[in-house]
Amino acid sequence: MSRTNRGNKIRSVEFEVNYLPSPKGSVLIKQGNTKVLCCANMNENVPPFLRGTGTGWLNAEYAMLPWSTHERISRESVRGKQQGRTMEIQRLIGRSLRNCLDFKVLGEKTFTIDCDVIQADGGTRTAAITGGFLALRLAVNKLLAAGTLKVDPIISHVAAVSVGIVNGEPLLDLNFEEDYKAEVDTNVVMNDKGEYLEIQGSAEERPFTHRQLNKMLELAGSGIIELIELQKLALKGE
Amino acid sequence: MSRTNRGNKIRSVEFEVNYLPSPKGSVLIKQGNTKVLCCANMNENVPPFLRGTGTGWLNAEYAMLPWSTHERISRESVRGKQQGRTMEIQRLIGRSLRNCLDFKVLGEKTFTIDCDVIQADGGTRTAAITGGFLALRLAVNKLLAAGTLKVDPIISHVAAVSVGIVNGEPLLDLNFEEDYKAEVDTNVVMNDKGEYLEIQGSAEERPFTHRQLNKMLELAGSGIIELIELQKLALKGE
Amino acid sequence: MSRTNRGNKIRSVEFEVNYLPSPKGSVLIKQGNTKVLCCANMNENVPPFLRGTGTGWLNAEYAMLPWSTHERISRESVRGKQQGRTMEIQRLIGRSLRNCLDFKVLGEKTFTIDCDVIQADGGTRTAAITGGFLALRLAVNKLLAAGTLKVDPIISHVAAVSVGIVNGEPLLDLNFEEDYKAEVDTNVVMNDKGEYLEIQGSAEERPFTHRQLNKMLELAGSGIIELIELQKLALKGE
Amino acid sequence: MSRTNRGNKIRSVEFEVNYLPSPKGSVLIKQGNTKVLCCANMNENVPPFLRGTGTGWLNAEYAMLPWSTHERISRESVRGKQQGRTMEIQRLIGRSLRNCLDFKVLGEKTFTIDCDVIQADGGTRTAAITGGFLALRLAVNKLLAAGTLKVDPIISHVAAVSVGIVNGEPLLDLNFEEDYKAEVDTNVVMNDKGEYLEIQGSAEERPFTHRQLNKMLELAGSGIIELIELQKLALKGE
Amino acid sequence: MSRTNRGNKIRSVEFEVNYLPSPKGSVLIKQGNTKVLCCANMNENVPPFLRGTGTGWLNAEYAMLPWSTHERISRESVRGKQQGRTMEIQRLIGRSLRNCLDFKVLGEKTFTIDCDVIQADGGTRTAAITGGFLALRLAVNKLLAAGTLKVDPIISHVAAVSVGIVNGEPLLDLNFEEDYKAEVDTNVVMNDKGEYLEIQGSAEERPFTHRQLNKMLELAGSGIIELIELQKLALKGE
Amino acid sequence: MSRTNRGNKIRSVEFEVNYLPSPKGSVLIKQGNTKVLCCANMNENVPPFLRGTGTGWLNAEYAMLPWSTHERISRESVRGKQQGRTMEIQRLIGRSLRNCLDFKVLGEKTFTIDCDVIQADGGTRTAAITGGFLALRLAVNKLLAAGTLKVDPIISHVAAVSVGIVNGEPLLDLNFEEDYKAEVDTNVVMNDKGEYLEIQGSAEERPFTHRQLNKMLELAGSGIIELIELQKLALKGE
Repeated sequence: MSRTNRGNKIRSVEFEVNYLPSPKGSVLIKQGNTKVLCCANMNENVPPFLRGTGTGWLNAEYAMLPWSTHERISRESVRGKQQGRTMEIQRLIGRSLRNCLDFKVLGEKTFTIDCDVIQADGGTRTAAITGGFLALRLAVNKLLAAGTLKVDPIISHVAAVSVGIVNGEPLLDLNFEEDYKAEVDTNVVMNDKGEYLEIQGSAEERPFTHRQLNKMLELAGSGIIELIELQKLALKGE
Repeated sequence: MSRTNRGNKIRSVEFEVNYLPSPKGSVLIKQGNTKVLCCANMNENVPPFLRGTGTGWLNAEYAMLPWSTHERISRESVRGKQQGRTMEIQRLIGRSLRNCLDFKVLGEKTFTIDCDVIQADGGTRTAAITGGFLALRLAVNKLLAAGTLKVDPIISHVAAVSVGIVNGEPLLDLNFEEDYKAEVDTNVVMNDKGEYLEIQGSAEERPFTHRQLNKMLELAGSGIIELIELQKLALKGE
Repeated sequence: MSRTNRGNKIRSVEFEVNYLPSPKGSVLIKQGNTKVLCCANMNENVPPFLRGTGTGWLNAEYAMLPWSTHERISRESVRGKQQGRTMEIQRLIGRSLRNCLDFKVLGEKTFTIDCDVIQADGGTRTAAITGGFLALRLAVNKLLAAGTLKVDPIISHVAAVSVGIVNGEPLLDLNFEEDYKAEVDTNVVMNDKGEYLEIQGSAEERPFTHRQLNKMLELAGSGIIELIELQKLALKGE
Repeated sequence: MSRTNRGNKIRSVEFEVNYLPSPKGSVLIKQGNTKVLCCANMNENVPPFLRGTGTGWLNAEYAMLPWSTHERISRESVRGKQQGRTMEIQRLIGRSLRNCLDFKVLGEKTFTIDCDVIQADGGTRTAAITGGFLALRLAVNKLLAAGTLKVDPIISHVAAVSVGIVNGEPLLDLNFEEDYKAEVDTNVVMNDKGEYLEIQGSAEERPFTHRQLNKMLELAGSGIIELIELQKLALKGE
Repeated sequence: MSRTNRGNKIRSVEFEVNYLPSPKGSVLIKQGNTKVLCCANMNENVPPFLRGTGTGWLNAEYAMLPWSTHERISRESVRGKQQGRTMEIQRLIGRSLRNCLDFKVLGEKTFTIDCDVIQADGGTRTAAITGGFLALRLAVNKLLAAGTLKVDPIISHVAAVSVGIVNGEPLLDLNFEEDYKAEVDTNVVMNDKGEYLEIQGSAEERPFTHRQLNKMLELAGSGIIELIELQKLALKGE
Repeated sequence: MSRTNRGNKIRSVEFEVNYLPSPKGSVLIKQGNTKVLCCANMNENVPPFLRGTGTGWLNAEYAMLPWSTHERISRESVRGKQQGRTMEIQRLIGRSLRNCLDFKVLGEKTFTIDCDVIQADGGTRTAAITGGFLALRLAVNKLLAAGTLKVDPIISHVAAVSVGIVNGEPLLDLNFEEDYKAEVDTNVVMNDKGEYLEIQGSAEERPFTHRQLNKMLELAGSGIIELIELQKLALKGE
């Protein structure tokens, strides 16, 4: 679906829930040609700095398959370390999803969210958040059903979308080609009450004004409302 | 399909060819519940030890997604190095696929085969060879069509299968559960002339006799014949 | 100077310019009790992806001394790798300062900005940007004076400040203690035309509304205007 | 001793038992010009995955001295990681020697086998297994004599040899020069009952037939019988 | 102060005690243009090899800021490891300062000495020892005052200085330029009883005689007496 | 040979020259129960900092086999890095042997000295220098004979020995047990003109006086004279 057809709407989105048998929650999110496999699971322990505090944690990891993008990316396992971009993205995913959990309610347990990009056509980090939330929601549902969790620790629904300025025009949900030409690139994470969990706006080619920021945030808000509806639909269908 | 139903046949096999848009050749091979994404591409250079020799090379990499298996595997990029099992497997894949190429005909070019396990239910390394060959074949076809390659460097068709001894009985194409109980675990790589490229037989629980080896090799041979037929079918359908 | 005294103003700021003899530009920025040593230098080459393009680059590195903060931080050189937070911050500094340069004018040269935190009391990343810009400005001045650069590649003045919401109140330029209690933590980078180069807002404890975002951005804007004035003063005094 | 003189026999073999004073068992095996120092020792603990199971483990490590071979090999400690070949070989040694132990009888203890190649002239991995077994046997003997072990956990004698096809002819126990020219390279590990513990056959230049495999295995069997006799002699002489 | 002015005296020395608020002891030592920030702190535990022995430990770390010297040094955190020179120096600092402590009196506690070079103009390792001792002394004083330590574990005062042979002449306390031209470079660590804790003499360009050694040691002794006086003065002023 | 028998003499020393076939020079030095394999070779290039200067270089590497000492040492290749002690020692060996070469005469070539400890009973670093020099001498002889080198770049003979203070008594050439009890441990490197190339004296348990230093240096001098005679004897026998 080209930009001309979709206007300032999000790309077509599809969620394959329970994509893998082993993790408690798993989703393959397809947003346009971007495909991210998101898995959520829970461990009965917490990082050292939280032991004995009665509160839990969530940790996210993000990676790209070597051929997910136009040119082959060398494996970070072969290089011997994760790159800065990877670190930055998985920290964003982690912060965003930690904000939808009540860790006092969860207790000393840790969720791990794995986001592996199968195919990248722009917006992989926001798709990872949108898909990651759904995987988390599925995992929590299973853990509640099994009695492993007694109370639902999720306090709000979360989704994310990218928005940018291309040729001076604010555009919602950029694909790779648009992202490549964007003067400004912004990632927005919101909950279902219309509140922000995270805003990251970067001038790529040109600084942006407050007016442009507001226009981008407005577009992002409309996209996230739609994404949350689609998430809820996918949960019903499950 | 349970063992009772399939007897000593290979599991159902499906090839999704051209699974990804970016690499020259790509295949998602599904063998039972094992799913491996195999991508093949070619570079116009060779490792230092081959520069100026007029001969080419093939290199393979293998990895498992964190949730491809029953318990989460920690990422090798986070650990900072590839593990011994990974190294051993990618060396096996590389050796096997180098044996189906005439590197003099290829000239100073290098193929890279990426094998990423999406879901693991036994036999991931042999599926990676079977799927990796198909990805290589697809890539070469495209390169010949585009004129980048003038002569086909592939000299034989290659496939691989595992075979083991479980409760004293030789079994073809073990799934995870059978593999776990196997007394002997053997991986066989053959070409379409019925010749061996690689045999790796390991006593896991109990040593094995020459008679048992022969029985395993016979089973493997029958499975590989079938796999090569399926590969050829997939190439026709393409 | 306590919050009661300064109200919603930035902390007292001092720039020790030419702090070190070896780099082309160096500044020790003191913002409240936060002290960051910023050095700028230029090399006559660019990263591989820019060779032959006629355009330059800027790269930033950030680190904290082991005793810059309340509890000793173990050295990243001893751990064998930089941590995610470090990566995230140095990427932010790099993006921000790249946005004040015209790389076509610069040509195939690379600036390196080193930001080493001597003492940390909140806002080290924004102080690194404000001080880093000044170091860059000093380096460019010297390179212009020496004739190494013929045309000034800097296209705008840049400074940054943090702003957060503490106990529901938007506060400018948080110190460590305030940052620790903040519900929302936002870093803003602007140029001297009042345009944004980077906005990073994160809900730490509680999501934030559009109204709160606007209030934070307004405060940040007032702080950055003041910082840019102080930078210009420091340049004059030099 | 040239190939012409020895025909299809193993090279002359010498075992210097108790080569080093510190490990419980140590052997310098010389097979032709190949020299491998093998040390065996036991710890009173097991890897995490075996704790509480009442069963033991054996782990092997393999390395080459920088000048053991024709061209200097750079140290893996300087490179910062073990190479794939090293990993593959030490996994082979470990699997082979684990197969001669009853880990239930051993209990929660771990043997470590260190194999360091002093001089390499082909067949280092099989010499490491043959010498490693002897070192293990010596260590167990000492531990039994000292009462640290009450029951002998070794269930069979083990040795290994390489066999290949050179100029179409199957050859036993290849030296470096023969190995370099070999079309097929096979490593065989057997116990003293004539059973296989491990078979690894690789086409290097040319695929091999079942008939060729059988011929190679026959040769390997004859060599291993001789090696086991020599091991037993060395144990008597001790 | 040029060499002509100071003759064979140490360069001017200044100690900024309590330079940082967080560590128990901290000193910025300025010796000529060399500036090293030294921090000392104590933990209530010891390395594994000392647990249960009732004796303590001291560990030192040394690093240079990227722009502390004439040409930028790449960060060891980015390279992924500490270099040999760094290791050598921090081992020297550790050995030297361990020799001024009675670890039986200290009990199972560990001091950590962090030495970070802000500006390097020769003699950074000896300045790190002289400054590191002062930071240790300050930390111990605070711990005694707070009652955390009951008995003073420091048994002697320690300082260090470099001495070399330049153009055949023994020179005390070399700066970078002199060090660069030195034929012999010696570092000497002494206590306030005039005894040696460490002597490291290296021929850089030319071997040295016993007579030259004695002359160098005599000069070093005179410099260290002066340094210890200055340390004591700084402690009084505190 | 116990200390009572040998008094203040060096331990019995044996050189197995040309121990390995591949490096240009190789020596197995046995000094008491310490055995170090030293190999020397030359490359036709220099490190980057020397390219185009017309001068050569020498680099040394040192390692211990896992079972060379009383307790197994874990492999540095497995840990992923060389330890501080290793770094310190190989830097000492390198500095010492660089001092016996005229690099202008050598031209842009690099010697590599590999020192691998087979068995450690004290004094491995000094044995590595003594054996390393002999390996270097043998390599240079071969390169002169082959015409690869036209002029001998070696300007002096070099040997090294350890000396310490045990129970208040200066002792020459400490074995492991003596070294363990030593109050002071000194390593001395000298040439055949009785000049020092390197002196490293460390108080281990107790500071040392100038008188004690002189006594240690005297003993070291006598030991080194003897070692150089033995080296020359070994060269003749070659």
